[in-house]
Amino acid sequence: MKPSIPKGTRDFSPQEMVRRNYLFDTIKQVFQRYGYLPIETPAMENLQTLMGKYGDEGDKLIFKILNSGNPFSDIDENDLNSIRTAVLAKIKSKNTNKDGITKITKNALEDEIDKEINLFSKKISEKALRYDLTVPFARYVVQHQHEISFPFKRYQIQPVWRADRPQKGRYREFYQCDADVIGSNSLLNEVELVQLIDDVFTTLKVPVTIKINNRKILSGIAEVIGEKEKIVTITVAIDKIDKIGVDGVNKELQENGINDIAIQKLQPLIEFKGSTIEKLNFLKQLLASSEIGLKGINEVETIINTVTICNLQSAICELDITLARGLNYYTGAIFEVKANVGTLTSSICGGGRYDDLTGVFGLPNMSGVGISFGADRIYDVLNELNLYPESVSTSTKLLFVTFGEAEQTYCLPLLAKVRKAGINAELYPDANAKMKKQMGYADDKKIPFVVIVGSDEMQNGMLTFKTMASGEQQKIVIDTIIEKLK
Amino acid sequence: MKPSIPKGTRDFSPQEMVRRNYLFDTIKQVFQRYGYLPIETPAMENLQTLMGKYGDEGDKLIFKILNSGNPFSDIDENDLNSIRTAVLAKIKSKNTNKDGITKITKNALEDEIDKEINLFSKKISEKALRYDLTVPFARYVVQHQHEISFPFKRYQIQPVWRADRPQKGRYREFYQCDADVIGSNSLLNEVELVQLIDDVFTTLKVPVTIKINNRKILSGIAEVIGEKEKIVTITVAIDKIDKIGVDGVNKELQENGINDIAIQKLQPLIEFKGSTIEKLNFLKQLLASSEIGLKGINEVETIINTVTICNLQSAICELDITLARGLNYYTGAIFEVKANVGTLTSSICGGGRYDDLTGVFGLPNMSGVGISFGADRIYDVLNELNLYPESVSTSTKLLFVTFGEAEQTYCLPLLAKVRKAGINAELYPDANAKMKKQMGYADDKKIPFVVIVGSDEMQNGMLTFKTMASGEQQKIVIDTIIEKLK
Repeated sequence: MKPSIPKGTRDFSPQEMVRRNYLFDTIKQVFQRYGYLPIETPAMENLQTLMGKYGDEGDKLIFKILNSGNPFSDIDENDLNSIRTAVLAKIKSKNTNKDGITKITKNALEDEIDKEINLFSKKISEKALRYDLTVPFARYVVQHQHEISFPFKRYQIQPVWRADRPQKGRYREFYQCDADVIGSNSLLNEVELVQLIDDVFTTLKVPVTIKINNRKILSGIAEVIGEKEKIVTITVAIDKIDKIGVDGVNKELQENGINDIAIQKLQPLIEFKGSTIEKLNFLKQLLASSEIGLKGINEVETIINTVTICNLQSAICELDITLARGLNYYTGAIFEVKANVGTLTSSICGGGRYDDLTGVFGLPNMSGVGISFGADRIYDVLNELNLYPESVSTSTKLLFVTFGEAEQTYCLPLLAKVRKAGINAELYPDANAKMKKQMGYADDKKIPFVVIVGSDEMQNGMLTFKTMASGEQQKIVIDTIIEKLK
Repeated sequence: MKPSIPKGTRDFSPQEMVRRNYLFDTIKQVFQRYGYLPIETPAMENLQTLMGKYGDEGDKLIFKILNSGNPFSDIDENDLNSIRTAVLAKIKSKNTNKDGITKITKNALEDEIDKEINLFSKKISEKALRYDLTVPFARYVVQHQHEISFPFKRYQIQPVWRADRPQKGRYREFYQCDADVIGSNSLLNEVELVQLIDDVFTTLKVPVTIKINNRKILSGIAEVIGEKEKIVTITVAIDKIDKIGVDGVNKELQENGINDIAIQKLQPLIEFKGSTIEKLNFLKQLLASSEIGLKGINEVETIINTVTICNLQSAICELDITLARGLNYYTGAIFEVKANVGTLTSSICGGGRYDDLTGVFGLPNMSGVGISFGADRIYDVLNELNLYPESVSTSTKLLFVTFGEAEQTYCLPLLAKVRKAGINAELYPDANAKMKKQMGYADDKKIPFVVIVGSDEMQNGMLTFKTMASGEQQKIVIDTIIEKLK
């Protein structure tokens, strides 16, 4: 049996960990510089906290945990009979498929079986793994509302789990790094998040474009073309313009029941090219009759103008009215960040404002705005472009190489002294290991300096100090070594 | 519906997180100072990686994850019938209990049901949550053996999950902080771990006693009293001496089939009091005829002598021959650490040497030694004694308090400047919030300094800088504030 890990999950080696910690520490420091404070929530949430929050597709991707003890103790003969019937029906349908059972009948049957299985699953599972950090955060805010001082700025860096089909760059366990502020309607929060994104990616040396949009603008567009109810359909279609072109978008709109007059009204918008200011001016005319649309334009304008006052360091910030990310949840600003370098085309950070983040848990009218950094994708970008500072490549700084037990014993107090000075150091533990092996260990572990101690060194205290990169050797006392490495 | 989290799990507030991070960062820094490098493994392991590694009781406490998709797709009529029969039998046995079914019959029935349920569980669950960090580490070493340079010193700080009955100080999700070295037989590794423990607890200001023992000494004792096979029984009994006294220990030995002569031979050992050196000398005589016993004594002596050369900073290190922790796994050194302060009597750190850590995964003869810090218990000790440095209590250092949108806009570039200097700062986001509310926010968040900006301040750039603790106010420019807080 060759040991392995579940598909879609990963081990991280020391080298990878050091790089990931650099990434997480950078994000963490910026979060804190902006006044966001950390919280953590359990990996497991009650199933009812999570179910129904991510749509039907999301619900299916939640990893459920089998009840401990005897998970079947609460089930009775009826449960067993119904799942038995459902599974038998499935087996039967599979076998008789070729004999002419139609596709629709099969789907309906599968739905029935899904229902049975859901009912049964609920009885044997009451907990599930965290699927994102937003729902646990909303639950946290409601549960601890009396201990929290609002506006509450929190960050959270923890793994989430999704039963997605594993594929390149997609994992079943991955980290999210979220910063949200809840209990404040001020647009300064949006401004601050744009600055924060700029700060993180400037520090990481990744040039990015921050696209912003506003749900209210999308509502306005749907309103002025007379298709208020079809806002999602319209936005989803417009979002594909880069992939399928204007004709493709129009075709999709038509197929989804948008009338021809509405589609015609949309044309100038779909075809419009221009700077953010030009876009805003164009939108002001187009949405002149829509109160909500004008409010959206005003919000975007305020955010972009204020961001401009503060001067972003390296990010480009622009309006993109095709941006529809998470449209079902967002009510105001929508953000998405893409790297301007490297081959990754998907977004590496995103977020927006929810007007009612906690209503589902019984605390209505709490507006929140936040962003989520996709740590694993950013990690891929940093790796591809090798954007790690040199200082990130190592951890142990000094290795003591010795030729026997007496030398080891001699080195122990020296080693303690070096460590006490805050220098990461070690002594090769096996007394009978050959020089070559010990030096190979230093090489493999990328330890930049070694101290070689034999009988000469023990007699006069002048230790052989070797710089691995250059091969240069010098004879110096331990205090000088400490001075050099501090 | 009041939102809640699964029993035995916890949310961590910003204040708790800051304290926990202090604890984790301290441990991490010491690990790195000793040349241990971080790895991480997935929260989910394949069920077969975990099952059978923790004994029957442990197996029952592993949290299993329901297969995603349709977890019941692979089960057939027979599976359903057998679990149905088993559960029905259980229901039946419960109902007829009073009518005279004996206890033994019931237990046997329960065993049968357990077997059925296990078989069924296996079909619907192939993954489980990490139960400790040692088994995933062993799996990691075997899986990545060709990328690893041995001896491999790794640390790992991650949560583990156990379906224990939740009780005070025991959680179903808790962090372990493990450091292990694998691929080296040298006792210097043991010495180093003792020093490392001393370093961690000295930094945390918790005085501790490090008890050490050796499995080989316990083997020697069992050998010389002629009960070689009953080493576990003997050690478990001796381990209880503080609780049940000499008579209690003897009674337990007798009940477990240790013969009277053997018990008599044990008496001097059980009753022996003395320093570590006296104990070692006493043991040398007692175990003179046992080769393995003498080897154990020699190992302990080497470790303690070498530790003495290096001078521990604050920990007391002593031999405790009743220490039997994890006896089923350890083959050499056994460690356990208890705090000498506070009310917690259970151990806060422990470990030992395994001669064959990875054999179960197909890589034999890899000796490893390691320790595990019980972060949640240490956290309880630090909280009880309030051992946090002052610097740990806060995160945001400066709050901008303003009286309107114009003031906010004026402050934005100043805020950016302060942050650019690396100072954690924020601006109260809602322009129309009253002074009292903004100051209350600073109080709640324990922000030590605020800058108050009104129309006067905007005109001449002299900002009102207030120290929250003293209430002292002064008028100074932003650069002076930055200088002060840097």
